[in-house]
Amino acid sequence: MYSFKNDYSEGAHPRILNALLETNLVQDEGYGEDRYSKEAMELIKEKIRNHDVDIHFISGGTQTNLIAISAFLRPHEAAIAVSSGHILGHETGAIEATGHKILSVEGKDGKLSPADLQGVLDGHPDEHMVKPKLVYISNSTEIGSIYSKSELQELHDFCQRNQLILYMDGARLGSALCSEENDLHLSDLPNLVDAFYIGGTKNGALIGEALVICRDSLKEDFRYHIKQKGALLAKGRLMGIQFFELFRDNLFFDLATHANQMAGRIKDELEKAEVKFLTHSPSNQIFPILPNAVITELQSNYAFHVWEKVDSDSSAIRLVTSWATSEEEVISFIEELKRELI
Amino acid sequence: MYSFKNDYSEGAHPRILNALLETNLVQDEGYGEDRYSKEAMELIKEKIRNHDVDIHFISGGTQTNLIAISAFLRPHEAAIAVSSGHILGHETGAIEATGHKILSVEGKDGKLSPADLQGVLDGHPDEHMVKPKLVYISNSTEIGSIYSKSELQELHDFCQRNQLILYMDGARLGSALCSEENDLHLSDLPNLVDAFYIGGTKNGALIGEALVICRDSLKEDFRYHIKQKGALLAKGRLMGIQFFELFRDNLFFDLATHANQMAGRIKDELEKAEVKFLTHSPSNQIFPILPNAVITELQSNYAFHVWEKVDSDSSAIRLVTSWATSEEEVISFIEELKRELI
Amino acid sequence: MYSFKNDYSEGAHPRILNALLETNLVQDEGYGEDRYSKEAMELIKEKIRNHDVDIHFISGGTQTNLIAISAFLRPHEAAIAVSSGHILGHETGAIEATGHKILSVEGKDGKLSPADLQGVLDGHPDEHMVKPKLVYISNSTEIGSIYSKSELQELHDFCQRNQLILYMDGARLGSALCSEENDLHLSDLPNLVDAFYIGGTKNGALIGEALVICRDSLKEDFRYHIKQKGALLAKGRLMGIQFFELFRDNLFFDLATHANQMAGRIKDELEKAEVKFLTHSPSNQIFPILPNAVITELQSNYAFHVWEKVDSDSSAIRLVTSWATSEEEVISFIEELKRELI
Amino acid sequence: MYSFKNDYSEGAHPRILNALLETNLVQDEGYGEDRYSKEAMELIKEKIRNHDVDIHFISGGTQTNLIAISAFLRPHEAAIAVSSGHILGHETGAIEATGHKILSVEGKDGKLSPADLQGVLDGHPDEHMVKPKLVYISNSTEIGSIYSKSELQELHDFCQRNQLILYMDGARLGSALCSEENDLHLSDLPNLVDAFYIGGTKNGALIGEALVICRDSLKEDFRYHIKQKGALLAKGRLMGIQFFELFRDNLFFDLATHANQMAGRIKDELEKAEVKFLTHSPSNQIFPILPNAVITELQSNYAFHVWEKVDSDSSAIRLVTSWATSEEEVISFIEELKRELI
Repeated sequence: MYSFKNDYSEGAHPRILNALLETNLVQDEGYGEDRYSKEAMELIKEKIRNHDVDIHFISGGTQTNLIAISAFLRPHEAAIAVSSGHILGHETGAIEATGHKILSVEGKDGKLSPADLQGVLDGHPDEHMVKPKLVYISNSTEIGSIYSKSELQELHDFCQRNQLILYMDGARLGSALCSEENDLHLSDLPNLVDAFYIGGTKNGALIGEALVICRDSLKEDFRYHIKQKGALLAKGRLMGIQFFELFRDNLFFDLATHANQMAGRIKDELEKAEVKFLTHSPSNQIFPILPNAVITELQSNYAFHVWEKVDSDSSAIRLVTSWATSEEEVISFIEELKRELI
Repeated sequence: MYSFKNDYSEGAHPRILNALLETNLVQDEGYGEDRYSKEAMELIKEKIRNHDVDIHFISGGTQTNLIAISAFLRPHEAAIAVSSGHILGHETGAIEATGHKILSVEGKDGKLSPADLQGVLDGHPDEHMVKPKLVYISNSTEIGSIYSKSELQELHDFCQRNQLILYMDGARLGSALCSEENDLHLSDLPNLVDAFYIGGTKNGALIGEALVICRDSLKEDFRYHIKQKGALLAKGRLMGIQFFELFRDNLFFDLATHANQMAGRIKDELEKAEVKFLTHSPSNQIFPILPNAVITELQSNYAFHVWEKVDSDSSAIRLVTSWATSEEEVISFIEELKRELI
Repeated sequence: MYSFKNDYSEGAHPRILNALLETNLVQDEGYGEDRYSKEAMELIKEKIRNHDVDIHFISGGTQTNLIAISAFLRPHEAAIAVSSGHILGHETGAIEATGHKILSVEGKDGKLSPADLQGVLDGHPDEHMVKPKLVYISNSTEIGSIYSKSELQELHDFCQRNQLILYMDGARLGSALCSEENDLHLSDLPNLVDAFYIGGTKNGALIGEALVICRDSLKEDFRYHIKQKGALLAKGRLMGIQFFELFRDNLFFDLATHANQMAGRIKDELEKAEVKFLTHSPSNQIFPILPNAVITELQSNYAFHVWEKVDSDSSAIRLVTSWATSEEEVISFIEELKRELI
Repeated sequence: MYSFKNDYSEGAHPRILNALLETNLVQDEGYGEDRYSKEAMELIKEKIRNHDVDIHFISGGTQTNLIAISAFLRPHEAAIAVSSGHILGHETGAIEATGHKILSVEGKDGKLSPADLQGVLDGHPDEHMVKPKLVYISNSTEIGSIYSKSELQELHDFCQRNQLILYMDGARLGSALCSEENDLHLSDLPNLVDAFYIGGTKNGALIGEALVICRDSLKEDFRYHIKQKGALLAKGRLMGIQFFELFRDNLFFDLATHANQMAGRIKDELEKAEVKFLTHSPSNQIFPILPNAVITELQSNYAFHVWEKVDSDSSAIRLVTSWATSEEEVISFIEELKRELI
């Protein structure tokens, strides 16, 4: 049984484990004030070509989202998210647990547009309703789509004009930036969003996301919020060492590129077989629509999510690849797919 | 410069890193539903000789405290803690951030007694005040003292009679249980407290505490709370593998014993030199009172916390040892201490 | 300018002010433990023919909703509401501010059905999502519709089977129960819902809602929650005296009947003129669809909300009547309407 | 049985009820946007000789405290209060329920000094602890003492230098300002504190406190916070009308003066009889220490709180007078006291 269920089924890239081994018995400061964390922050600042940002390492995506959003908002302010947004339906009300409503917008292809945001603002004119303040987007999105530079520029401009904070969930930012269709560079982000995070967990790390705060007014006292939410790890070096390893050369991007290529290989073959897809997703998640009988066959050797029923005979499945996805297994899977589909 | 500042200055015990390496590329379920986590839970249940408990792995102490306490209490209920309790002054208001007041009690030697609790109950008779509900203790305490079995039995009995929840923070439970003065066994705990955690971070793990919920009424839906607070790690195996390694034989206790022995060596020598201590601490933290001049000298080669001023000429320092403390460094430190104190 | 904007544009029914005057200088206990509050509770228990309920007087609807819902739910549990529900869009995120997500359901005619609830349960299977636990309905609804006894019975049965709490917002319960189409009796409610409130503010009182808690497990320590949210009025008698006056005879129902009759008079005339309505509303709120030109004319003498655009030429307006609505003004308004519509 | 238990045992001053009667059937806007509320705000601005403040009417003291403090603070920031402070022990954890810790300081005579505050700041140096940000004081205090102008000036200066917010709970501000020992004028307050409230409930109103926000940065969006906490009354006019009546001439001060005089009369006689007091309290609350036998005798005709045991034979009681306290009852009480004490 080989799994395409998600991008966190294995441990860490071997280079990361090796880095942990090599530094293991060196004594250093706790709570992320160690040399490895500091060096990793510097490396990331160089990669994004901006030294005015603040960087914090936080253990996971939900943790990062809830700390950032609750730190950025006053009690009466709300977040806006597309209806498929991770914070809306897959974080057990973590944002609401910090006191903030999330306003859901239908959006398109898992993405938000200025017109969506204008609609929310129009519907929230006074103090009898929450005040929409933070725009939550993810890149790549929950359904594998990515934002183009111009789409992001438009969102940025709208948010600026309307005093909104633009926040990007980058759990799969590596995959987005390494997509063949991508025209964004990591260094564009500080100019386009107020804060974002670079996902480590789903791109080769054991644990850890790098939150990058770009807007000055959002930086103050941020470590207090991390600590208050229980996320200031005593051995913060665990994350520093990993991000150092991911960014000391091109490893972060190489791993994401591999993930995308593996998904792309499967996608290409499916397209050849004239299989349709639920969404257009040029990243490491694809959602082919297959006959139910084929799905059942595949399930005897492969693990994956059946995403949704499409009609009485077919369903969309979700296939996720990662830095760890084996090329051999992809080839075998394609072979089996071909057999099933012919 | 050698550090006695804390017990989280290094990475993990080599056996733990090795276990991570060996399992690294095995695919398994996310969110702590992997085989390693499940096996580690079984091992711990065997060690505590109780299979009716629920066990959850959570990344750190503050995280564990805030999730457990906020899950166990209704909105109007409060925790009680001794004034030196970690949740009171060293967690950035994490418990209050979940909505709950902590009632501070002076206590004695860092510990609470039934008389302390009775005083709190007497002072909170009606709905104009919070309702005291959960008793927070730590073992070993913030100042290195430990609870005897009879002390814990008395607290347990008082809590039972008064419908109070007894919760033990075990960030340094290994050190407490391996203390020469200890008369508690790990398997006593499910009979004496309603929930407790076994600290991994300060006893050889990279990250992770094992929360053990003993009282049935506190178990329901607990994973929802972990997820909502952002603490359900995608790669939960990271903690499962570590706790499996710590408990598959005696490693957890061996590491704590080493830590205690290292502190004990220093303590014995200081006592021979008639040095006084701020508190009686038979665990891996000791608080000798030294002349300020000696402290200054020591600081050129050793890192440690100056805990508090005692009089114009002397201060108490905190020395912490761990599984990683080098015997050679302890010997050197003792030599230097002797030179300074004569 | 006469206002049909809402049912809280005036003070209190004269009998209520008179009751305040007559009792004014009598000394009594604070915080709702006065004789008037206790007597009012007894009266209400008699009217609902159930002495096993707990009753609490709370100043307003949002206050009552947020106290009740946050007291009833554990942190990971969520409320379900129809998309037009007051708690969803008109209470500034008050429920979320206490930590709980509200799951929005489209519903029909402002009402929820068991099928709606089943859909929510199906979509929330595990700990990665909130746990749906409380069903919020209002009667009459935000758009003036009312629940029939059989509809409520079905919801009740569904909730019982699925361990859900059924909570009814009764800001306009008087109007619902006095509707010509109503087949519910006040005394049916304790058998059909777990908690509900009887709205005073919109039915003749200066301030105050009477929360009735029917399910035993929801009663414990409830006054703590009222106090913690700042709603335990020092002069709780202010609400006790008013509810005593409303329920010592039939005043509460007489006032609601008057409000309904005034709306009914306008509605009848509009129907004769073949005006369409946005919704079927047999209570004190009606939503006729009028040509925009007519609306503009009406606005020179009458205040009301323009509810929503229907097409390029017409909009729905909301007309609200109350205990204080003057029959003469209603007659004048009808006259003007007739002139405009012919 | 006559009660000296508190200053909220009766309804409202007759002029206030009369004002409610006279305006009762006038239609006006809801949610505090009516003419009465607006006029009352203007009157208060004139009395404090400052038109740059924002004023909001809120139903009670706990409600006002929790809305203001939670609106003013970011999540990691804490309030500081003297150990007898109302928010610490008598509001059921209302502040903590909004997420904020309150740091308790011993203080002196129920009051805080700059030295107390400096101690708190020194003890909270970094992100492992909450950040002290708001200083909560009350005037008069819980034990009847009052702040002098110079004491308040010193607190103000300290807060300015240390970026702290100075907030005054004025539940009994009338009594403080009308004390014979007072040297503060209402119009001094906007220069000395960042926000304060003028208590109505304990000085002649049925309900209502007037929150005055002086510092510009604390004003933004404040009505959202009132609404979110359930405190934006639909019939906000109820409070506007009352404050208009209290401030359209000198009524507010006359009522407080009467309360103080009644307490003063009792105090003078007790001092003649060489009775000692628990605290020096030149306001409407006094705390004489009486033999337990005398207390028992008094209790057959009078209601009051026995505050605390002083020694085996005597206790301090709390006597509270108000705008409604009858001079005849005070005379009778004094007569009885004299009989008992001779």
